[in-house]
Amino acid sequence: MRPVDLIAKKRAGGRLAADEIAGLVSGFVDGSVADYQMAAFLMAVCLRGMSPEETASLTTAMVRSGEVLDLGPLADRAVDKHSSGGVGDKTSLVLVPLVASAGVPVAKLSGRGLGHTGGTIDKLEAIPGFRSALSTMDLVAQVQRIGCAIAAQSASLVPADAKLYALRNVTATVDSVPLIASSIMSKKIASGAAAILLDVKCGRGAFMKTASDARALAEAMVGIGRAAGRRTIAVLTAMDHPLGRTVGNALEVREAIETLAGRGPDDLTALCLTLGGWMLVLGGRAGTAEEGAEVLRRCMHTGLGLAALGAMVAAQGGDAAIVRDPDRLPRAPVQAVVPAAMPGTVVGIDGQAVGLAAMNLGAGRARKGDTVDPAVGIVLDRVVGDQVRTGEPLATVHARTRAAAAAAVAEVAAAYTVGPENPPAPRVVLQVIQ
Amino acid sequence: MRPVDLIAKKRAGGRLAADEIAGLVSGFVDGSVADYQMAAFLMAVCLRGMSPEETASLTTAMVRSGEVLDLGPLADRAVDKHSSGGVGDKTSLVLVPLVASAGVPVAKLSGRGLGHTGGTIDKLEAIPGFRSALSTMDLVAQVQRIGCAIAAQSASLVPADAKLYALRNVTATVDSVPLIASSIMSKKIASGAAAILLDVKCGRGAFMKTASDARALAEAMVGIGRAAGRRTIAVLTAMDHPLGRTVGNALEVREAIETLAGRGPDDLTALCLTLGGWMLVLGGRAGTAEEGAEVLRRCMHTGLGLAALGAMVAAQGGDAAIVRDPDRLPRAPVQAVVPAAMPGTVVGIDGQAVGLAAMNLGAGRARKGDTVDPAVGIVLDRVVGDQVRTGEPLATVHARTRAAAAAAVAEVAAAYTVGPENPPAPRVVLQVIQ
Repeated sequence: MRPVDLIAKKRAGGRLAADEIAGLVSGFVDGSVADYQMAAFLMAVCLRGMSPEETASLTTAMVRSGEVLDLGPLADRAVDKHSSGGVGDKTSLVLVPLVASAGVPVAKLSGRGLGHTGGTIDKLEAIPGFRSALSTMDLVAQVQRIGCAIAAQSASLVPADAKLYALRNVTATVDSVPLIASSIMSKKIASGAAAILLDVKCGRGAFMKTASDARALAEAMVGIGRAAGRRTIAVLTAMDHPLGRTVGNALEVREAIETLAGRGPDDLTALCLTLGGWMLVLGGRAGTAEEGAEVLRRCMHTGLGLAALGAMVAAQGGDAAIVRDPDRLPRAPVQAVVPAAMPGTVVGIDGQAVGLAAMNLGAGRARKGDTVDPAVGIVLDRVVGDQVRTGEPLATVHARTRAAAAAAVAEVAAAYTVGPENPPAPRVVLQVIQ
Repeated sequence: MRPVDLIAKKRAGGRLAADEIAGLVSGFVDGSVADYQMAAFLMAVCLRGMSPEETASLTTAMVRSGEVLDLGPLADRAVDKHSSGGVGDKTSLVLVPLVASAGVPVAKLSGRGLGHTGGTIDKLEAIPGFRSALSTMDLVAQVQRIGCAIAAQSASLVPADAKLYALRNVTATVDSVPLIASSIMSKKIASGAAAILLDVKCGRGAFMKTASDARALAEAMVGIGRAAGRRTIAVLTAMDHPLGRTVGNALEVREAIETLAGRGPDDLTALCLTLGGWMLVLGGRAGTAEEGAEVLRRCMHTGLGLAALGAMVAAQGGDAAIVRDPDRLPRAPVQAVVPAAMPGTVVGIDGQAVGLAAMNLGAGRARKGDTVDPAVGIVLDRVVGDQVRTGEPLATVHARTRAAAAAAVAEVAAAYTVGPENPPAPRVVLQVIQ
């Protein structure tokens, strides 16, 4: 069938066969399917949807567009994780070494940040000397030797995804469950692990604003994983406010170290233990998520988790001494306090606003290719549920200049809602889909 | 707003303002809106629709992309016509001179054929010497002098339409009422006449297969015309079988001459008198369509209509003697009869199949840019309702070679349905929308 006939089929609400979808994707990558044809097809997918079978076929076709990691003897034991991201989300920094310290290997490929959310690679690169560009061979060798690695996703993995995403971004076709699910899962499947844990966030600070949208995405991804023969579990988690107490690269590394040492903020610690507990279940090291969480809690308290982070940092050329002495991390020259304008309880912190304030400070990118300042960011001195008196600090801005600090202080102040009432205790884990 | 935001708005089912649509169209023409963005937008329009206001805005934006004909003092009196086309549709060849002979000027721009339907310009070019490329100045001068002209649409008129159509053709976005209506009406409005008569065909041989689809298109076009300040009337006509008894360029010119002389087939004559009657109403020469038809019938019988065709052909460099002596038209070297395989009544003739058979003979184009053979085609010796005995001719194929004739004989034979029952008398005019 010609591309135009396949577009017409989807436009009419029809279902495409696996070979039809494979033809479109490979044609798009080799240029025989024009970008305007793919754009029309993507819009038809957005408005007509895709069946689970079609979504799985799309994912398979995308995986086949590039290299697939061969984790060798590790593949069966390794567990991969993905988070749909959010402001202050440093769970990968905690989870990858923590789970590895409990005996489940993790070879994780991560991306860089864009817009109001940061990227794991940007955060790790705040560690002096840290190298995120690993060859496949080095990545696999490192995981075999020390149990874990976090590397920047290379362009040879799922090239169809990068090309599709660039097109979706300028044609208003980003927001589509089958397209988002296949984009995420193609990279996880190409990364080679037999098991995948998905952290699907929902709420004001997340891409998916409602639980039902997040559930639909989670179900689509679990379906894709199953179709590809991967054990896949999705955990729906709340992301109404920033996660933990820091936003910004070096600041988040420091918080991850605190968390691995068992001294992290409650919400981040709870989330890491839940997600990690499921990763141990997927890796065959625990019967239940609760049992897995208990194993990980012990890894925190014995220092095994922190040691694994140190080993990973060292293996990737970074300054491993930061795990004992986080003051070695870069520190911004200007600190400015965001004072409370009225007394009361913090009832909300707008994650997107805090993320944008951090981006404006230089912690993130407004445009692809922008450079990132590792030191700047925001520390949330008060989080949801905390009491505050007038003039007491809500947050502390870490900035490169006084002017940047002043702008961020105003932005962060506006992100806080302080009221008289006590907010309900936030739930972190909403649902588990497997 | 950025193009991506306008696409998102339409994707969500929103309505775009006139300046937003104008920005998309002008950006598409000047290249600042990428073709993949326009493709996504067009698919969103196909699936979300457009309000009458949006459709009118789109048409206006398209008209503004190029030259607008200035008919000068003629503009107010001139009446334009458009037919959505069909197999054997030579009504323009009859109507333009006939209506002009009754005192209503017609400056008509026409296109070439593609696929199973022919184009008016291809038909006229079967007349030796006929020149269809007229400058705007020559076109207007000719209509002022003799009352009518039919010229090939120039690329300077509505360039946005050609560019949009090329994109729609490869992205499965052709079939959309607002897109079809704006494409047709932009060209009519740019052609400068104050009044427009639309012949919207429906049925098996037409683009619109059902009366309700055809009605939606007619209403959209009448709405656009009204919004642009043009008196516009649409006539819904049946196109289940080929129109008249000939398909092919010179053969159709001959049939048009016969019809102007009052000796044409019933269906074609009735259609021309109805459409022409409404054109006289639009041109202020008749109070009702029936009264207009009566005036035109007299123009046939007095020879005024045929004389007007002769004058137009002469003015455009063609051999005007063909109106008295149609044998001067090119004639194919091979004629072959399509015999009836069984006795009975002709209950159906598949217009599309006959059109494709004519195209395969060389009368039409499989691809843009193919050359057309003026002489070849098909004469329908029996039409719907006619009796036939086994072995009697159903049709006669006019071909360039014996091999081409043999192939066409089989194709035309398969297009006929001969049965025992008498079919209901076909209605030509289904509804008038004004």
